[in-house]
Amino acid sequence: MSLGVVVVAHVPEMAAGFAKLLQNVAPTVAITAAGGNSVGSVGTSMDQIERAFKENQATELLVFYDFGSARRNIELAAAFGDKNIYIYDAAFTEGAYTAATLLQAGQDRAAINADIQRLIIK
Amino acid sequence: MSLGVVVVAHVPEMAAGFAKLLQNVAPTVAITAAGGNSVGSVGTSMDQIERAFKENQATELLVFYDFGSARRNIELAAAFGDKNIYIYDAAFTEGAYTAATLLQAGQDRAAINADIQRLIIK
Repeated sequence: MSLGVVVVAHVPEMAAGFAKLLQNVAPTVAITAAGGNSVGSVGTSMDQIERAFKENQATELLVFYDFGSARRNIELAAAFGDKNIYIYDAAFTEGAYTAATLLQAGQDRAAINADIQRLIIK
Repeated sequence: MSLGVVVVAHVPEMAAGFAKLLQNVAPTVAITAAGGNSVGSVGTSMDQIERAFKENQATELLVFYDFGSARRNIELAAAFGDKNIYIYDAAFTEGAYTAATLLQAGQDRAAINADIQRLIIK
């Protein structure tokens, strides 16, 4: 079992840019992103999220999203895949950053969950 | 006096993509973005932030940033300009989204401050 991070945002550039930032601070952590709806406009897409789940080399994924409406698509994508998906209702940027840096430091999911409690704002 | 929103992120695409999302939900609010360091790599830049302050058509700016190291550059840029700058130590995406949508709904800064308290996590 390995842990990775997936970020889901309503705009493609936002998701891709954030994944780039996370990869910069957590170079050996598996990080993938899904952004925008199925035609790349503002929104999210179950297909894009499924792709980000598949592309991620980890088998357990910690998923962070920008706004509420993304959550439903994440849940749907999770139901179709065979990976363990953990959705975090945390501050998007701060939560994913915390998870990525703790994974980079070799921490497990219990440690991440404990640290991230302060960022649960949704 | 008019209120606007500025978002500051460590990656240019992230800042620009987020500003696009905010403008989508708050079409008549003045929103500008600064992302990346002076050469467009991961980081922030006082010059980029100053530009975002100047380009914003509002005279009072509510500023949101992704991570701590951005704050110092925001403070420096604020010191050089003639606008009133209010830096929010809030969850980046959720805080700026809340501010933009409340401004769009005609709320003032006191109302925004009250609502955003729950998002102060830095």
